[in-house]
Amino acid sequence: MFKEIEGGVTAPRGFKASGVACGLKKDGKKDLALIVSDNTASAAGVFTTNLVKGHSLMLTMENIKKGRARAVLINSGNANACLGKRGQDDALEMATLAAKALGCDRTEVLVGSTGVIGIPLNMEAVRQGIDLAAASLSYTGGHQAKEAIMTTDLVPKEAAVSVPIGGKEVRIGGMAKGSGMIHPNMATMIGVITTDASISPELLSCALKRAVKHSFNRVSVDGDTSVCDMVVILANGQADNDPLAPESGSFEAFCEALDYVCARLAKMIAADGEGATKLVEVAVEHAPSEEDAYKIVCAVAKSPLVKTAIFGGDANWGRIFTAAGYSGARFNPDLADIYIGDLMVCQNGTALPFDEEKAAKLLGEKEVKILIDLKQGGFSDRMWTCDFSCDYVRINGSYRS
Amino acid sequence: MFKEIEGGVTAPRGFKASGVACGLKKDGKKDLALIVSDNTASAAGVFTTNLVKGHSLMLTMENIKKGRARAVLINSGNANACLGKRGQDDALEMATLAAKALGCDRTEVLVGSTGVIGIPLNMEAVRQGIDLAAASLSYTGGHQAKEAIMTTDLVPKEAAVSVPIGGKEVRIGGMAKGSGMIHPNMATMIGVITTDASISPELLSCALKRAVKHSFNRVSVDGDTSVCDMVVILANGQADNDPLAPESGSFEAFCEALDYVCARLAKMIAADGEGATKLVEVAVEHAPSEEDAYKIVCAVAKSPLVKTAIFGGDANWGRIFTAAGYSGARFNPDLADIYIGDLMVCQNGTALPFDEEKAAKLLGEKEVKILIDLKQGGFSDRMWTCDFSCDYVRINGSYRS
Repeated sequence: MFKEIEGGVTAPRGFKASGVACGLKKDGKKDLALIVSDNTASAAGVFTTNLVKGHSLMLTMENIKKGRARAVLINSGNANACLGKRGQDDALEMATLAAKALGCDRTEVLVGSTGVIGIPLNMEAVRQGIDLAAASLSYTGGHQAKEAIMTTDLVPKEAAVSVPIGGKEVRIGGMAKGSGMIHPNMATMIGVITTDASISPELLSCALKRAVKHSFNRVSVDGDTSVCDMVVILANGQADNDPLAPESGSFEAFCEALDYVCARLAKMIAADGEGATKLVEVAVEHAPSEEDAYKIVCAVAKSPLVKTAIFGGDANWGRIFTAAGYSGARFNPDLADIYIGDLMVCQNGTALPFDEEKAAKLLGEKEVKILIDLKQGGFSDRMWTCDFSCDYVRINGSYRS
Repeated sequence: MFKEIEGGVTAPRGFKASGVACGLKKDGKKDLALIVSDNTASAAGVFTTNLVKGHSLMLTMENIKKGRARAVLINSGNANACLGKRGQDDALEMATLAAKALGCDRTEVLVGSTGVIGIPLNMEAVRQGIDLAAASLSYTGGHQAKEAIMTTDLVPKEAAVSVPIGGKEVRIGGMAKGSGMIHPNMATMIGVITTDASISPELLSCALKRAVKHSFNRVSVDGDTSVCDMVVILANGQADNDPLAPESGSFEAFCEALDYVCARLAKMIAADGEGATKLVEVAVEHAPSEEDAYKIVCAVAKSPLVKTAIFGGDANWGRIFTAAGYSGARFNPDLADIYIGDLMVCQNGTALPFDEEKAAKLLGEKEVKILIDLKQGGFSDRMWTCDFSCDYVRINGSYRS
């Protein structure tokens, strides 16, 4: 029922944004993004489960507890993590300065940082940057903001939809960054979602968790997960819909649209994985349990051997089966079928003679699908990843330098 | 008390071996290894925990149950896995033919296969190879055998020691192969250990499990684990020592020597990891529990981001800390110290200013040590891995071709 629209995080009514260069990135690219709602919005978030947490992220986890926020301020180029008291102070100062520039309380500002760990923020640059970002805010600033959160991303990532709810038009917009250090259950990257829907913080949190589970938590680039990952959502009510009620048709419509925006962004992250030349979808069908399906898509999507074979266009399905076998999932290998695209390469756990030319063609596409059909139950799952190329090694061999 | 000696698997008395080329490898290199004890030996093994298991490995798991064996026959170039009844028949024929050539029962032959999954064995080549291997057996054939089990290994791997036990000289020899698809708890590779000690199968199994835990199960190249991995040991009693008794000083001396042989082979595997330019030792000290220490060494040794940074000589300790954080171990990040070699780069979870030149020098060595001191308990662990280079991707992008 929803349709795609332009505008990213500023597509919903009453949201301004900006993205500026304040000098944190050596190459002079944009490195500070500010997203502001005209009025105080319902707010919810999902955060990294890494035991080590960045200072900016920890402040946001604290501020979001009351379910209300006005603004999100994110710098790239520096993670502001593992810096002790200094890192905490810097995160607090970022929120305080943004609040001052916007005329709101500092607990209403959510902050995020992404980049190298263990190097103190250049706060002189950040201070000037916050003033500049506040002065540059506009109702069409989403495009600038999405660029300012990029690290090793090659492509900026945004999506937005419009969905009719109770006679009103509700809009949902989002932006994300993430290219390396990507794996499930750490929220996997930084994402900011905005919407003009009227919805309580509790219900918003519920909708976000549900959407993240099958989008941002189903992307793996390298199995590594950052200390700064989060997805936050702000809902400012300017669509003027009746507040969404749990288990209503309206709430379902909202969730479907939100799921779509999150999944679009998640696929963009996988496709833009560090060094990626292909987007890979790993699916499991007919698993004995939800957990078994998840374990297998996770292990296959994470396997360097599977990912290098796909990079090389080599239909080495034995590696896919091997990864399923060590995933920890319970299944009967003698029932498993494996497909590359629509080509069956293994049936009942046994090699099939297959058309190598067709396999090579399927593996040469920009999007590669792998399916493992366990033929043992009613559960399925899927995960997006990318292939593993020499460029991944080049990018990550000298990230700090 | 033990000392290193020459000879690999034929260093112990009463063991012959051979390694021949029968045509399984396209490049004409050796691809069939045979190790034979003059008399029936006590036998024990550790096998992959992968749910998917190769046909040769499954036959060996069956044959070894009675704790006695005469010979080990291993082919490289083909995994003999995922081939249904045909794969089972081929494994059985290998054992039967070897038994016939050696004049023993077919259940006394342990078989192993390593290489590509899903391609049927060229049994015509194998049949000729077995005859040739049996005809080439010699008391100095260990060097040939170790070459015949190599796949992507660049370096053949063997070790042997001599240890005085109860007035007699006991010898232990071993060979191993493994370069990719290496990770703990799947026995991680193929290893064959021989000894002329007199020891019961039960006690031999106990000694092997203990040795494997801190050697072959502490090596990670890529987190992937094969369906054909196993370590087997044969003890033929020709040293003429009194049979080893549990918890005796003699048994301890034997175990220490066995631990050493296994650890030597395990380190060789890590150093020869696919595309490796450096051997990396990841250690954790003062962890709250054995499990926590293990989880951290595992996560750090497996992290592509840590391994590419070491390849690039980049002292990006934030990635080490991040991997520890998502490992699932419980610890207080605010107490953790991190060292690269003897250089502390993070203290109490907080960045330290450090000498970048010294760090670069330490990371430029052929052996790199990483230590995470949790300062929270009495448990420690360590794992060997290697760096992650462009060559890993090149090797694995076209393995089947």
